[in-house]
Amino acid sequence: MYRLRNWLISDNGVSEEDMLQNGNRLMTGNGYLGYRGTVSEAEPSWMPAVIVSGLYDRQGDLWREPVNAPDCLYAKLFVRDEPLMASGENVLSHEQTLDFRYGIYSRETSWTVDGVSVTLHAERITDICNVHRLCMKYAISADAPVTITLKQGINCAVHDLNGPHLGNFRLDKDEKNGLLVLDADTLEKAVPLSVACTVDVAGDVVCGTEVSGEGAFHVYTIKADKDKRFDFFVYGAVYSGADTAEDCGVKARETALSSLAEGWESILSGHRKKWDEIWLKGDVIIEGDDYAQHALRYSLYHLHSIAPRHAKSLSVPARGLSGQTYKGAVFWDTEMFISPYFLCTEPDLVARFIRYRIHTLPGAKRKASEYGYRGAFYAWESQESGDDACSLFNVTDVFTGRPVRTYFRDKQIHISADIVHAIRTYINVTGDTEILKEGAMEVILECARFFLSYLYYSPEHDRYELLDVTGPDEYHERVNNNAFTNRIVFSVFETVQTCVDLLKKQDGGFIEKLFAELSFDTDMAFMHEVMKKFYLPQPDSGNVIEQFDHYFKLEDCSLDTVKSRLCDPREYWGGANGVAGNTQIIKQADVVLMLVLFGNEYSDEIKRANLAYYEPRTEHGSSLSNCMYAQLSCASGNSEWAYPFFIKTAEIDITGTSKQFAGGIYIGGTHPAANGGAWMTAVQGFCGFSMNDGKISCKPRLPEKWKRVVFSVVYNGEHIEVTVTKDGYSLCMK
Amino acid sequence: MYRLRNWLISDNGVSEEDMLQNGNRLMTGNGYLGYRGTVSEAEPSWMPAVIVSGLYDRQGDLWREPVNAPDCLYAKLFVRDEPLMASGENVLSHEQTLDFRYGIYSRETSWTVDGVSVTLHAERITDICNVHRLCMKYAISADAPVTITLKQGINCAVHDLNGPHLGNFRLDKDEKNGLLVLDADTLEKAVPLSVACTVDVAGDVVCGTEVSGEGAFHVYTIKADKDKRFDFFVYGAVYSGADTAEDCGVKARETALSSLAEGWESILSGHRKKWDEIWLKGDVIIEGDDYAQHALRYSLYHLHSIAPRHAKSLSVPARGLSGQTYKGAVFWDTEMFISPYFLCTEPDLVARFIRYRIHTLPGAKRKASEYGYRGAFYAWESQESGDDACSLFNVTDVFTGRPVRTYFRDKQIHISADIVHAIRTYINVTGDTEILKEGAMEVILECARFFLSYLYYSPEHDRYELLDVTGPDEYHERVNNNAFTNRIVFSVFETVQTCVDLLKKQDGGFIEKLFAELSFDTDMAFMHEVMKKFYLPQPDSGNVIEQFDHYFKLEDCSLDTVKSRLCDPREYWGGANGVAGNTQIIKQADVVLMLVLFGNEYSDEIKRANLAYYEPRTEHGSSLSNCMYAQLSCASGNSEWAYPFFIKTAEIDITGTSKQFAGGIYIGGTHPAANGGAWMTAVQGFCGFSMNDGKISCKPRLPEKWKRVVFSVVYNGEHIEVTVTKDGYSLCMK
Repeated sequence: MYRLRNWLISDNGVSEEDMLQNGNRLMTGNGYLGYRGTVSEAEPSWMPAVIVSGLYDRQGDLWREPVNAPDCLYAKLFVRDEPLMASGENVLSHEQTLDFRYGIYSRETSWTVDGVSVTLHAERITDICNVHRLCMKYAISADAPVTITLKQGINCAVHDLNGPHLGNFRLDKDEKNGLLVLDADTLEKAVPLSVACTVDVAGDVVCGTEVSGEGAFHVYTIKADKDKRFDFFVYGAVYSGADTAEDCGVKARETALSSLAEGWESILSGHRKKWDEIWLKGDVIIEGDDYAQHALRYSLYHLHSIAPRHAKSLSVPARGLSGQTYKGAVFWDTEMFISPYFLCTEPDLVARFIRYRIHTLPGAKRKASEYGYRGAFYAWESQESGDDACSLFNVTDVFTGRPVRTYFRDKQIHISADIVHAIRTYINVTGDTEILKEGAMEVILECARFFLSYLYYSPEHDRYELLDVTGPDEYHERVNNNAFTNRIVFSVFETVQTCVDLLKKQDGGFIEKLFAELSFDTDMAFMHEVMKKFYLPQPDSGNVIEQFDHYFKLEDCSLDTVKSRLCDPREYWGGANGVAGNTQIIKQADVVLMLVLFGNEYSDEIKRANLAYYEPRTEHGSSLSNCMYAQLSCASGNSEWAYPFFIKTAEIDITGTSKQFAGGIYIGGTHPAANGGAWMTAVQGFCGFSMNDGKISCKPRLPEKWKRVVFSVVYNGEHIEVTVTKDGYSLCMK
Repeated sequence: MYRLRNWLISDNGVSEEDMLQNGNRLMTGNGYLGYRGTVSEAEPSWMPAVIVSGLYDRQGDLWREPVNAPDCLYAKLFVRDEPLMASGENVLSHEQTLDFRYGIYSRETSWTVDGVSVTLHAERITDICNVHRLCMKYAISADAPVTITLKQGINCAVHDLNGPHLGNFRLDKDEKNGLLVLDADTLEKAVPLSVACTVDVAGDVVCGTEVSGEGAFHVYTIKADKDKRFDFFVYGAVYSGADTAEDCGVKARETALSSLAEGWESILSGHRKKWDEIWLKGDVIIEGDDYAQHALRYSLYHLHSIAPRHAKSLSVPARGLSGQTYKGAVFWDTEMFISPYFLCTEPDLVARFIRYRIHTLPGAKRKASEYGYRGAFYAWESQESGDDACSLFNVTDVFTGRPVRTYFRDKQIHISADIVHAIRTYINVTGDTEILKEGAMEVILECARFFLSYLYYSPEHDRYELLDVTGPDEYHERVNNNAFTNRIVFSVFETVQTCVDLLKKQDGGFIEKLFAELSFDTDMAFMHEVMKKFYLPQPDSGNVIEQFDHYFKLEDCSLDTVKSRLCDPREYWGGANGVAGNTQIIKQADVVLMLVLFGNEYSDEIKRANLAYYEPRTEHGSSLSNCMYAQLSCASGNSEWAYPFFIKTAEIDITGTSKQFAGGIYIGGTHPAANGGAWMTAVQGFCGFSMNDGKISCKPRLPEKWKRVVFSVVYNGEHIEVTVTKDGYSLCMK
């Protein structure tokens, strides 16, 4: 059972399901490494993982997925060859805790062995200062004499969804300084990966080493007794060829040894200081609602623990660094749900996300070309090269075990528009047009070109249309004129115009040169024609916007009816044969998302009408859904209605009650998009905060019990504290 | 086991499966009534049926289907209350035979009861002179004294797939002349249906009557003995409000009584004479190949037994009058597979088919409008009004029992073009332009208008395209630019032009007036623009035409591989989740059909390349497939390769080995399209016969063992006998 307190979340569960949940719930990370919140003696089936950002591998013809590094903080206790496990029957007490202010994981477990009580207290961090560093304090005590064995070192028996991913293992040990080193290569592209660890031990112990196919370990014999404590300090390091051109093995050895030299207390102190700095800009204070306060901070913690501050060009996967689900891939989540928070608090991070899209532009162009289009069709599931990791058969039929043809990869064309939207917003807020010259302008033009090559003209209606697409509501594949998609694609064309105008005002002929390089003049002329006759679905007489052509003709039944038709709880709801596919039941915000993004263009009446129409028809089967309904409800004047949707979003990684399977595929993990959605709802929704075209403003519509909200934004390089009450708001330079 | 001889087909099977098969195999019909080839004592589960052409009904929200009339030739024998059934354990011998020269069904069954042998010999016809008439001779004998009871009359306990369909039953009897009458109404539209019968009995029998909820019956007590024969002559009549405005009950009574007055021998003689006339024009003689001869004649028999000679405007269902499968609906089968034979032999029948499409034009316009298009979108499954009987969920998922969304109804837009193709061919062969003025020109224009409102312009490729369609290969739904569909739609535009030119040459300003009435001028101008840039997929470097956009990118696996993936033999192969849907395995001729229809436009090389590519990838899951492969193979010079495909087509209703289930739905019945396909292959394929633009010609390419083929055609009102040998051909006026 989990417990949420001020900056702390704990759980005392010991079942395998608890272990899985806590792996997500208590995870630590620093944007480079993600260390799941599992105990250090975890069995592979508990899914322990050390995820290395930006490093992917393919096993055979299975999906490419992130590489799980050998675990250098692995540690397991034995008494007379019997292991002491958190799940053991001899456990007296067990609790794991995450201090999410400082990203410190701790666990305390006591066992009784032959009447003797043995206690382990461990703490660990995924260092946020030196992102290659993993450190652990591991303290053992007992209330009577007992001989305990500790096996600690680099465990290669890692869990993988589609593994293994490493080969060419080379294990090394340096008896002199207790260093253990593993060098290995990924299987697909032979990218080197090195893991090192060393140990500082306070107490009188006997040490040997054990090297096997399972890894390299120190084996300590500990003569424990009453009032004696044995403190082990483990210093680990991880490097991969995906993030350094230097020798990974050398770097890992150096880092482990320099950490040993620096020591736990100093490292921990630096780590805490850095987290203090993060919260200085990143915290949101909610007065009057402790649960919302804790849940929101916890959400923001998750965002910071995956923020790629170490890399100039990197993005965040849709499941963060919490494991291998969703192929460790970057989705639109980054641009649409995660960027808004960082744009207001650490805009440099958004620039990194944009640069990731710039450097994956060749992959996006390859994808467009593969489908017979021009320009850039960004990957629905993007890994290091920008080629699409998404399979054409992304779901399994639970009745036949056969793969189901899905159209996430082929038809979710809005991804290219989402990226342009994020660039446009970034420029609007930061005024940084340099990013355009770094490659973002090329991204914008190639995305526009993709849509120009994708669209069709309807002579019957004298308009340009987007046919055969899949919108945010993935349950309805291959639809025509998805309102959201059409609107955001139109926004791409608008962005081209805006950015061209911006750049033309500057010196240097950059845009003229780029147009010439890309031969964009013809496209530009055609784009202007298209903009005159581009189809944007409009509200009907009841103010409701049809999600796509003929959506209103689909069976209009309740969510309960659709659920009652399920023959297996793990069935995929969408697509041609899914229970929702031929009804008006949708997976997530779609028209509602459009109304949030383009709120200025629609009246409150329209917003309310669409909320009222679509919400009862929405499964909220995606973690991206609730926050959009909440925001639109705030925007149209009903914060109380929005509140439970906010809570569901903010607590998603606390409760762990989100969908764990879709069409037979495990999809568990953390939910950075919902984490970002919680911030959006609190700050943009309830506080009505906006930062557009050089102007900061708030339009408070706080929930009943919220007294005051305080948050920070960075604007024009200035750090501004915003205080919002029910009646107004104030800004304060810091 | 069936036996095929000269004009005779027999079967001695007595299992329930045999009964089902023989219902199709031995059926008789006259274009108005279809009487399944079941024994007169058939149980409902053996699916006896008297199908009334053009009469449909809906039970609840089940599919509309043809009405099965109460059976007035029902007869059952009893000895001491024990029924004598063809399937009984006391059967000594049993055989049923169809004389398909004269459409005479007969059966002979002997039973042994208490050591006595009882023999029944029965013959029946579905009178081809007076189509409302059903007649039966029923002869009983025994080899020793025995008392037999015969129950004969109108049996209302009919089998229905989606029934019952009749209510408001009124039973009447007239002791004086032994008349039994049933009047009833259909449930949905209260269309009256009347059935009458009377009996002439030769022999000393005692008669009573029995009227119950099951029907109205005469009950005869027969004292049988050696050398005594009891002959019963039963005269039945069926009328429905769908085919007469007169009182059905009166008409049925009159017909039964006048038949009684006329007598069996006279009626039979008239019936045989009429069949002789039919074969005079309709027969095809194949010398040197008895099996092919019998199979082809048997195929032609089936076509004649459903030819609607009695009605000015009527078509034939895809399963003929063999039952209620396929909803008794008219498909493209009529225009593309059945019309060619009749066009050459009895073109008046084709005019009736065309008039059926003329009078169902309002239904086709309603369908177009329902989907947001203009013009006429003909029903995929057409019943009496032309509204589409096809459901949006036309198949059942065998794993979940849930309906599967199919796109037969929505996307098989080629149906409207197929109808125009048939009209164009009819005019080309007959020169009858009057049909255009009867409404066919309006059909052509409205079909063209439908396609003009359906198509899109691709700015990227500067061409007009047909998106989101389903071609003849129904396994691949919702594809773009299906080569067959694009070509035949282009042919619609060509036909508009041709027919407009034809009519303009005539007096009366008909076409000008029609254009004005239909406001077609704008459409015409646009049509001309479209024709300049209409996309017709072309052969690739290997001369193969891609079936639709990106077909070649689908998994290219073998038919066996696809079959091996089936988890249930009754699974539907097509659509989004079917085993074939995401592979290159196709259901039936698609590109190949196009190459047959538009053969003049493609070289033999192209024909051979496409045959070689597509045949191994074709399931031939439709009875429409084999004949097209056979024809194309003939056309490109390989008759021997074509021969087995011809045989499969010609024997389909003999062997009864076609698919009986698709996605859990029973689809058994006769196969008129294959029957027509057998003629096309023999005459147009092997004889290379064509009748185009005022010229008859043959290009013989007979299979090795065929010595000579003789057939008739009607041309410019003249009856011409065509004799084809391996070396040449001759024409002879008759």
